[in-house]
Amino acid sequence: MQCIIRITALILTAFVSLSAHAVDLRSKVQQYTLAHEAAIVGELTALTRLKSVAADPAGIAATAHALEAALKQRGFEVSELITGMGTPAAVFGSLKTPGAKRTAVFYAHYDGQPVTPSQWSSDPFDPVMREHALTDAARDVDWKKATPPFDPEWRLFGRAVSDDKASIAAFLAAYDALKATHTRPSVNIKVLWEGEEEAGSTHLAKALHDNQSLLAADLFLIGDGPVHQTRRPMVYFGARGVMSLEATVYGPLRALHDGHYGNWVPNPAAMAATLIAQMRDDNGKITIPGFSDSVRAITPAEQAALNDLPPVGDALKREFGIGRSEGSEELPASIMRPALNIRGIRSGQVGDSAANAIPVNAVISLDFRLVPDQTPAAVRASVEHFLSAHGWSIVSEEPDLATRLKAPRIVRLVWDAGYPALRSDMSTPAAKAVIAAASKAAGAKVVVLPMAGGSVPLYMFADVFAAPIICLPIVNHDNNQHAANENLRLQNLWDGINTYAALMAELNW
Amino acid sequence: MQCIIRITALILTAFVSLSAHAVDLRSKVQQYTLAHEAAIVGELTALTRLKSVAADPAGIAATAHALEAALKQRGFEVSELITGMGTPAAVFGSLKTPGAKRTAVFYAHYDGQPVTPSQWSSDPFDPVMREHALTDAARDVDWKKATPPFDPEWRLFGRAVSDDKASIAAFLAAYDALKATHTRPSVNIKVLWEGEEEAGSTHLAKALHDNQSLLAADLFLIGDGPVHQTRRPMVYFGARGVMSLEATVYGPLRALHDGHYGNWVPNPAAMAATLIAQMRDDNGKITIPGFSDSVRAITPAEQAALNDLPPVGDALKREFGIGRSEGSEELPASIMRPALNIRGIRSGQVGDSAANAIPVNAVISLDFRLVPDQTPAAVRASVEHFLSAHGWSIVSEEPDLATRLKAPRIVRLVWDAGYPALRSDMSTPAAKAVIAAASKAAGAKVVVLPMAGGSVPLYMFADVFAAPIICLPIVNHDNNQHAANENLRLQNLWDGINTYAALMAELNW
Repeated sequence: MQCIIRITALILTAFVSLSAHAVDLRSKVQQYTLAHEAAIVGELTALTRLKSVAADPAGIAATAHALEAALKQRGFEVSELITGMGTPAAVFGSLKTPGAKRTAVFYAHYDGQPVTPSQWSSDPFDPVMREHALTDAARDVDWKKATPPFDPEWRLFGRAVSDDKASIAAFLAAYDALKATHTRPSVNIKVLWEGEEEAGSTHLAKALHDNQSLLAADLFLIGDGPVHQTRRPMVYFGARGVMSLEATVYGPLRALHDGHYGNWVPNPAAMAATLIAQMRDDNGKITIPGFSDSVRAITPAEQAALNDLPPVGDALKREFGIGRSEGSEELPASIMRPALNIRGIRSGQVGDSAANAIPVNAVISLDFRLVPDQTPAAVRASVEHFLSAHGWSIVSEEPDLATRLKAPRIVRLVWDAGYPALRSDMSTPAAKAVIAAASKAAGAKVVVLPMAGGSVPLYMFADVFAAPIICLPIVNHDNNQHAANENLRLQNLWDGINTYAALMAELNW
Repeated sequence: MQCIIRITALILTAFVSLSAHAVDLRSKVQQYTLAHEAAIVGELTALTRLKSVAADPAGIAATAHALEAALKQRGFEVSELITGMGTPAAVFGSLKTPGAKRTAVFYAHYDGQPVTPSQWSSDPFDPVMREHALTDAARDVDWKKATPPFDPEWRLFGRAVSDDKASIAAFLAAYDALKATHTRPSVNIKVLWEGEEEAGSTHLAKALHDNQSLLAADLFLIGDGPVHQTRRPMVYFGARGVMSLEATVYGPLRALHDGHYGNWVPNPAAMAATLIAQMRDDNGKITIPGFSDSVRAITPAEQAALNDLPPVGDALKREFGIGRSEGSEELPASIMRPALNIRGIRSGQVGDSAANAIPVNAVISLDFRLVPDQTPAAVRASVEHFLSAHGWSIVSEEPDLATRLKAPRIVRLVWDAGYPALRSDMSTPAAKAVIAAASKAAGAKVVVLPMAGGSVPLYMFADVFAAPIICLPIVNHDNNQHAANENLRLQNLWDGINTYAALMAELNW
């Protein structure tokens, strides 16, 4: 259906192009994209083959070098920001537009989340095109042999393909479309592509601080995260912060027969369950006193934007196969609150390997999502104070025998540094210009979200620069981001190219 | 130290043996054992090499055939009880003693718990001798090249080596000792060696029922479980029942970014924690209403036996590296109560593989330990009623989409059949005779425990036979039974041979 609409649009575009100047940017970019689908998918595929995950520093470096080459080839001045151990923290590129009075920085990250290859249906770094979202019936597609236009419901599967390599590929294709159609950008263009976002953006703050004049701009556009669940293009004005924690609860020094010792030797899996149930209730509400003390209230304008969001709850429940949501709020209101997520838990064995034994420990991997104005330090303090008050002895290393014997309940906490949330003002001239340009590219008003649930280290930009920070996602919400079988829906890539082209050529304030 | 004592005992024995008839059975058996240490360890090692675990039916069958050969070679009449798919449920052997008025059945099992080889320090089925319990400093010992007597603190490592192949090896060696010393048994001897105990004794009840005359006896002696933690020989009069359960809690159909959906999509790991915390408190007390309704009270005689047990709590806490026990009771009182043990839990990922995602499910493996007069059916009913009352929809198969959408909280329960507990009368003439014979073999009064915490399907014997059922363990308590690096301390094997010899030759009532 969508395919037919696109072909119709092409015919209309071709017809209208008799008078080139009358053709709007949206049509010109669509026409360009349609003529270059295979090349654009090819560039994204090549990028996805590069193993840009924290566990593979060589893969991160190779990706940086490929991106530098792509920018140089397009005439950008390029440099690497902070290079330790051969791995740049970020790639920077700059292209002046003669006469432009504004400068926009386009941010995205090229590193991906860790992978557990056994959970994937195909190699995370050998991208595969499939007919649609992954089901038993989803056939692979040999897109290289297919005749464009491709079915826009096709999806490309691979780690980081949508988070965020699609944003980078869309930016490059949009720039190429402008050049091919002799469309002059309306702003000076800078790009900042980070290689450590999924590993906590360890060096980004320093990179921004050390390169203030290089990065000086009137606007930061952050190309991370998915569009709205209705598949409508979206602009959002902030993101929750994040902080991860690994908690290890200790049982006996060796696994013990649970018949002989069950009821007497403390069971670490049960202790871990207690610990989790102490910290959050069944509705996801965090029960740690003080945890939410500093949470900034939603403004009336933000509340109005939340009220305007298209309803998606019922559709998502069907899509996810869930019979309830946590709490009674709609999704947008839920993600305005802090969250405590259990990412995983491991203790003993299950299934055929399960033995009747008390395990030696239980490991819980969790993360907190922070909202303005919580700080990682305050979150850590409130969690540790709470656990201490509940009788947990907190250690940071594997406890020795003396420590074990002294403490009735031991938990080893390993925190990452984490970072806070950010919610930008939705009423600045730059904000209005971005919404206008993105809406023009989409052919309808975009969805506007005050703050995304996922995390982007926006605070780092706000710490150094006064310019507005606005987020411009392009990928599908059902992209399996952070999980196995991450994928990108082609229509989102095409829409994203439109959006990026408009933000480069039609942004005026 | 213990080695010196044994050598002294040997010298004394050698001295006293000038008058053969004056030498008591204990000394004769000790002397025999000392002269045959390598052969006895060799027989146990050969048995341990046979992979008698449920996952390997051929290994189970091979072990059965080896045991049949060992019995036949000693003059026993041998048969297999119930043979399905080539794997016997049990091996039976019988040897009449002319003139004996009593018959004792010696039970043990030759199958072992499942193994997770990656957790073992050596191949579970290629037994290794070490100097002592497993520590970084515990060196391997090449016992085949060592000159006996072996250090009695040496330990042999392998799956099932102590649970229960040591009982079988001790029985065979004890029988050989009686024969070598021309000591006539005092009872007719029957053996029943099971091959499915760790897999739930699926066919034992039928085997007993179908072979009532073959197995007719005045006493059943069960050679399973460890001796007391003080390392003193022990007799016990029952065992808790057991019932295992795998509970799978369902989250979204695919793993979801926990930033975008955390606080709204239910997290199955957190739900699993809630489920566990609902069923048991931090002290191991089961909080399921009705669960303990039918628990039979401890009798004054049983309470007196519990009071007589040597205290072990402080020593065990040091040994296990735990700073508390669950609840305020001593270990023996704790194991007189039912227990809910978490054997393992799995959800999402931890460590370097952890991604910021809401997992698709959480799997909890658990078992219940039952006490008289609980039944598996009543336990299952009370658990399922409790979970339903707490809003859980119970399913027995992977739920389809319609089921998922209807139910806010879904848990899939997979129960095994389980079996009830048994506590025998400690005051029968047979009971007194067993305590007396075992005490004589030990050279001091044995420890008497009313019921062990671990499970043995004693109820199956009680269902068919009226004869007393008494348990006669020999292995060390710190044998890593049911866990990785299961092991047998040699002194326990030597003591066990004494005990078995006494039970065959000095049992009179």
